[in-house]
Amino acid sequence: VPQPASDAPLHTDALIIGAGPVALFQAFELGLLDLRCHLVDALPHVGGQCAELYPHKPIYDIPGLPVVTGQELVDRLLAQIAPFAPPMHLGQLVSQVQRQDDGLWQVHTQTGQAFVTPAVILAAGAGAFLPRTLPITGLDALQPGQAGHHLPQADTLAGQPVLILGDEDLALQAAIDLAEAGNCQRVTLMHRRDQFRASASVLAAFQALRQAGRIQFVAGQPLAVQESDGLLQALSYVDTAGQTQTLACSRLLMLLGLSPKLGPIADWGLALERRQVLVNTATYETALPGLYAVGDINTYPGKRKLLLCGFHEATLAAFAVAAQRDGGKPPLLQYTTTSPKLHQLLGVAGHTRSAG
Amino acid sequence: VPQPASDAPLHTDALIIGAGPVALFQAFELGLLDLRCHLVDALPHVGGQCAELYPHKPIYDIPGLPVVTGQELVDRLLAQIAPFAPPMHLGQLVSQVQRQDDGLWQVHTQTGQAFVTPAVILAAGAGAFLPRTLPITGLDALQPGQAGHHLPQADTLAGQPVLILGDEDLALQAAIDLAEAGNCQRVTLMHRRDQFRASASVLAAFQALRQAGRIQFVAGQPLAVQESDGLLQALSYVDTAGQTQTLACSRLLMLLGLSPKLGPIADWGLALERRQVLVNTATYETALPGLYAVGDINTYPGKRKLLLCGFHEATLAAFAVAAQRDGGKPPLLQYTTTSPKLHQLLGVAGHTRSAG
Repeated sequence: VPQPASDAPLHTDALIIGAGPVALFQAFELGLLDLRCHLVDALPHVGGQCAELYPHKPIYDIPGLPVVTGQELVDRLLAQIAPFAPPMHLGQLVSQVQRQDDGLWQVHTQTGQAFVTPAVILAAGAGAFLPRTLPITGLDALQPGQAGHHLPQADTLAGQPVLILGDEDLALQAAIDLAEAGNCQRVTLMHRRDQFRASASVLAAFQALRQAGRIQFVAGQPLAVQESDGLLQALSYVDTAGQTQTLACSRLLMLLGLSPKLGPIADWGLALERRQVLVNTATYETALPGLYAVGDINTYPGKRKLLLCGFHEATLAAFAVAAQRDGGKPPLLQYTTTSPKLHQLLGVAGHTRSAG
Repeated sequence: VPQPASDAPLHTDALIIGAGPVALFQAFELGLLDLRCHLVDALPHVGGQCAELYPHKPIYDIPGLPVVTGQELVDRLLAQIAPFAPPMHLGQLVSQVQRQDDGLWQVHTQTGQAFVTPAVILAAGAGAFLPRTLPITGLDALQPGQAGHHLPQADTLAGQPVLILGDEDLALQAAIDLAEAGNCQRVTLMHRRDQFRASASVLAAFQALRQAGRIQFVAGQPLAVQESDGLLQALSYVDTAGQTQTLACSRLLMLLGLSPKLGPIADWGLALERRQVLVNTATYETALPGLYAVGDINTYPGKRKLLLCGFHEATLAAFAVAAQRDGGKPPLLQYTTTSPKLHQLLGVAGHTRSAG
């Protein structure tokens, strides 16, 4: 849900576009350098792709976390940045980014919020992600919770005939989870053809449940929802023979993945290489002074799209923003293990053992 | 304790010099690319500086770990690399590194172990670290455990008069910890003068305990230990007036910090900048093909000596070693979240939910 926007521009040391894991850690590293920031993200919640696509899947390559799910990682990062409490503006697409005559950046979102800042940090994955949609008539007439892009709490689906749209891991795994939970009246997955872009293990589990009759599959292209008083009754669709059919359902999950929308970023005159933004690896600054890019949106020689690389990039970008603040002078490196100044910023000053 | 060395050289995909956090994660990233490695470290245990100097101190800036001690981080990394079980050769200084005519590297340790490998990765902090020593006569005659460079288990010190040598956080914190535990007969700290190179909070706690009579301070320069049947009886030292004195003690802790010994690394013809090795940030390769440097030992524009940066460096170095193996072809990036191949390497293939 977009937050109400104020008319007055917000002034801040840095504006982070994105609220995924790298964006969150960016706020942490800025905080350690005593820089305040705001975050803006197109999705209505923090965590970016990680929380959107793989909230319950294990990740094995975060250093020091032998296994962690996407959602756990996001929760851990939120706990880590809590001392700095950066304001988050969620459900807002950035609509405009321009440099003022005084060298500061002015950023506007589609909901009318404006920011003025010396440093803009793009940390928006491969752009600003939005759930992919299909042109289905009548969705607007439904009450909240009848159709959506997220798997809701299991109990809201109990006893319901549920229809899932999609052909990737996200959709198939949701069908598997619901079928295994066993409390829906029926679990149906619809895709335009009986072929899927899913990983081998997910596909095998899906097909096994299908053969056991616990998941129904329907090949079809959705047309329109039918409702009564805003409550979903059925979906009409075109089958593979070109005939219009109707399928009864009371919950619709559109799990079609995310669509990267570079949006205005594509028009900023940045050096792009295969839709990635080129950066200087000493600072993670783009060709435009004061505009930085970290995580999956950037590229440089040797670039690997891994979270742990994004964490490093965010760290060096924070030092560059601090140097920019301090007239080009790089800040001293202090260690969180030993620095009283960092302990104060982190609110852990009392944790050092004392004699008293 | 140095391990017995074999005469036959060990052949491996990569040799990591160092066994600190970055070296451990280096083994993990190599493992994900199906590369085998060995680790060699001068210290007798894994964890490097982190486990040696700050085992119980909290670190706050590891992404996703809001607070973790040095030892916990090492333990977590050991759990993470367990699927690859890289052999570790501890307590061994590297004595020789040379390139063979066939382009492979030959590495020898001071205990006579030899390795042959296409890739050597320096991950040895600021060199090969050894505990700093003082020229004290008679140490060799003591039984094990009477004098050492590590804080032993608290119960071995119970009821004993303990003497600590040192003037930095490491020594002062040990004195604080022992005084607060309260089960030693006496806790004395000796340094040549009544001035310390410690952080403000540690120093304050130390001075408070000193004023309360719970820590004794003696200004002096150690000369020799006095023993009886290998059991420590006292330390003789020169006081500030130049007189030789004797202090009774039954346990001696020499907590003088670590001494970086670049050792042979300094003689390898590498490009060095302030004793750091220059690397290419696309590969973390040095000027010598097949010789990589990651973590605190390397430098490049923007370099910050942080563990999380070392983790990134180790990752790109692993990809470069794999490309070197594959005739220059960079390996495909796969994600631990979704790749069955990586799940197999990690031994977690069965973790994906199945219908059965």
